[in-house]
Amino acid sequence: MNERRPAGRQPGAGRGRIRMKHQAIGPLFTDLYELTMAAGYLRHHRTAEATFSLFVRDSPVRNYFLAGGLEETAAILSRLRFTSSDLDYLKKTGKFGEDFLDDLAGFRFTGRLRAVPEGTVFFPEEPFVEVTAPIIEAQIVETLLLNSFGFPTLIASKAARIVEAAEGRAVVDFSLRRTQGFDAGLKVARSTYMAGFSATSNVLAGKQYKIPISGTMAHSFVTAFDCESDAFSAYAEVFPDDSVFLIDTYDTVEGAKNAVRVAREMYTRGHRLRGVRLDSGDMADLSRRVRKLLVDAGLPDVQIIASSGFDEYKIADVLGRGAEIDAFGVGTNAGVSADAPALDIVYKLARFAGRNVRKLSPGKQTLAGEKQVFRRRDAAGKFAEDIIGTSSETIEGAEPLMETIMEDGRMLHRPPALEEIRRRVRSQTASLPDACRRIDKKWTYPVRISGRLQKIQEEVDKGRGKWSNS
Amino acid sequence: MNERRPAGRQPGAGRGRIRMKHQAIGPLFTDLYELTMAAGYLRHHRTAEATFSLFVRDSPVRNYFLAGGLEETAAILSRLRFTSSDLDYLKKTGKFGEDFLDDLAGFRFTGRLRAVPEGTVFFPEEPFVEVTAPIIEAQIVETLLLNSFGFPTLIASKAARIVEAAEGRAVVDFSLRRTQGFDAGLKVARSTYMAGFSATSNVLAGKQYKIPISGTMAHSFVTAFDCESDAFSAYAEVFPDDSVFLIDTYDTVEGAKNAVRVAREMYTRGHRLRGVRLDSGDMADLSRRVRKLLVDAGLPDVQIIASSGFDEYKIADVLGRGAEIDAFGVGTNAGVSADAPALDIVYKLARFAGRNVRKLSPGKQTLAGEKQVFRRRDAAGKFAEDIIGTSSETIEGAEPLMETIMEDGRMLHRPPALEEIRRRVRSQTASLPDACRRIDKKWTYPVRISGRLQKIQEEVDKGRGKWSNS
Repeated sequence: MNERRPAGRQPGAGRGRIRMKHQAIGPLFTDLYELTMAAGYLRHHRTAEATFSLFVRDSPVRNYFLAGGLEETAAILSRLRFTSSDLDYLKKTGKFGEDFLDDLAGFRFTGRLRAVPEGTVFFPEEPFVEVTAPIIEAQIVETLLLNSFGFPTLIASKAARIVEAAEGRAVVDFSLRRTQGFDAGLKVARSTYMAGFSATSNVLAGKQYKIPISGTMAHSFVTAFDCESDAFSAYAEVFPDDSVFLIDTYDTVEGAKNAVRVAREMYTRGHRLRGVRLDSGDMADLSRRVRKLLVDAGLPDVQIIASSGFDEYKIADVLGRGAEIDAFGVGTNAGVSADAPALDIVYKLARFAGRNVRKLSPGKQTLAGEKQVFRRRDAAGKFAEDIIGTSSETIEGAEPLMETIMEDGRMLHRPPALEEIRRRVRSQTASLPDACRRIDKKWTYPVRISGRLQKIQEEVDKGRGKWSNS
Repeated sequence: MNERRPAGRQPGAGRGRIRMKHQAIGPLFTDLYELTMAAGYLRHHRTAEATFSLFVRDSPVRNYFLAGGLEETAAILSRLRFTSSDLDYLKKTGKFGEDFLDDLAGFRFTGRLRAVPEGTVFFPEEPFVEVTAPIIEAQIVETLLLNSFGFPTLIASKAARIVEAAEGRAVVDFSLRRTQGFDAGLKVARSTYMAGFSATSNVLAGKQYKIPISGTMAHSFVTAFDCESDAFSAYAEVFPDDSVFLIDTYDTVEGAKNAVRVAREMYTRGHRLRGVRLDSGDMADLSRRVRKLLVDAGLPDVQIIASSGFDEYKIADVLGRGAEIDAFGVGTNAGVSADAPALDIVYKLARFAGRNVRKLSPGKQTLAGEKQVFRRRDAAGKFAEDIIGTSSETIEGAEPLMETIMEDGRMLHRPPALEEIRRRVRSQTASLPDACRRIDKKWTYPVRISGRLQKIQEEVDKGRGKWSNS
């Protein structure tokens, strides 16, 4: 660093600043154009109510999505205010007039938020959130909503595939060191747990969300002792009933033998080894050899946990090759949704000032009108078809998915517990057609548009000209 | 939501919780095993000093990296404490004994942090951060350090390629809506600016980091007025000297003509149109047609700004096909580093209790000892070669890159201003060999190991057996 001012005490630079930064998820978490457009709307008295639909355009690698982000988004919306420091900043940019800044001082979100409950399965093109509010409010929250619904949805949808591939085996989130920032680390733990992971290594997420936390040991621990057995014994002494030994530091099979020796000592003292972890090599082959050693030693209940670069594809591969693995630790590939690190999520105007509007650009058509998604099940209870309809219709034998979460800017109900969301995911994914759950093949679930919604589109198209939107 | 307890007032669920969550980047931001290993070390009195090296293993798609994350990481380390609520939580997990929890109550980071300054170019396998501290401290901060150095480095390194491809044209960060969480949105704005982007659309980042903010308008604004010209005029009335018109809502060429008409009216009132934005279609072709219209209309200074799916590859493509674009808005692909959404970043034990240690697994060898990276320049001042040496040696004619940032857990100097970091990036990338700056071809910069460091490795290997680590 060039600026060498010796500092007797801790330089203040970072302290308060970081704290503030993370607190400050307020209305400045937005793209500048949302504010300049708002200033334009205000000046020209275009302040009527608008409805925006949030949806994901098609995805080449996901057959379905799991809705995430609702609890946090609703909580943020309900307390969205410009602080005086926010307003000072905006004033100092020199971009905005006093009238607009005065207006922002009184800003709050007064609108309606409709959304599918967290953990609900949805498909491309289906609105899973709709916002109806004065256009200035609806516009200012666009960026926030895309981010706060999008990322948890991205991760939950990825995690559901990993849970699917694990075929009932436990999956633990190990991603914290490689997530895209701090907030992502927390959201990944919550979203993967919601999607069916059984625990996380993320201690803060454990505290924050009451998610079970799980951990083993690192190679550095093994090498800090004189030999592998010493390290295992030392660990077992501290965690006599909750030890998982990492056995690949030197040689996995030798490591398994050392684990067996220490486990037997533990058993003589009335304790049990919880598991061993493999972290390198051919997991299918090694896990079978380790299992045989454990079974031959009379330790059939010791779990075999595997980690290192797992995702749904690698899990399916090792299980397909006969791996004897009880649990997977999954890190980076889940934590950044590595094969598809962003959702093509958009927020599109559907209604403004009492008029339905849509965008007609080729390949980017949107659906005008306040909408609802209806789901029909077959005789066996499986999801058979979705119908995108209007928010005011009812469709015989089909369940409407979006509920009203906020009205007049206030939450109507307490959000469900995370465990409840997790149960919903389990029941929802169990109701999916088998082809939809496959991780190796793109399959398109049937989604159609109701007659009434179709008619609205035709009316809009007839009367339009200028009423497009993108 | 199933749990339908009507709530007279705002349900409290989200309020305090979210605020707390973002404040709480403390020592619980860690993997559980860091804490269980710490408990093991403490019980067995293995509390000696350790040195860990942070580095990136090879990357298939990056020729170099830009170091990020130092300012925030050092600030967090300097105030790292377990709160009483953290300790209560750990106690409630039932995993830890009183002795260990008492020890954590007094925990702080007392170590040394050595690092290359933010914005420094570095290469695979080179340690760009080293931590020396009692092993318990060094281990507990592992997860935090990997995350907080890793993500800004990932993004800055991606952004540098985009800046390179833009060949001097302005690049603006438009990613906020698609970043992986809130914290990522802020870090992307800072890291891309550091790497040479000229502005961000992210208003909060503008406030937080004093980054220039920039914005245009969305299609929804255009469609909220009776015709495109009305929307342009309305916007220009509010922002008479800072307007960029989005011209592709209906038809880009017609949109350009409308922009020209409104711009001429603006000029008669003494104002100037800043630019027009293209957001769809063939950008090479459309930008040339729009430029011709602007030049023919006597408006050669109106900027042409292009957005929609840009990254270094698409920028190089459109410029290669003769696009007349002055500035690029770059979103998702930069904001999640889409082609490589995670760094293969690791934190490896290099020295413990006075002994140098290394890991020898095939393909995953690490370098024992406290290290330094030395950089040699050629006669023209370009980077010619890096030498990884010991922290105590000096290498004639080569500049040592890592500086001591913290000693005894305290920052020694005020961190440099972001503008200074940005200047360092510019000077560093200008000093790279041309082949290294190419975005289309993998090229390996020469990095070798000093004789003294090599000797340490040989000594470790001779005396080892057990002293491996991974």
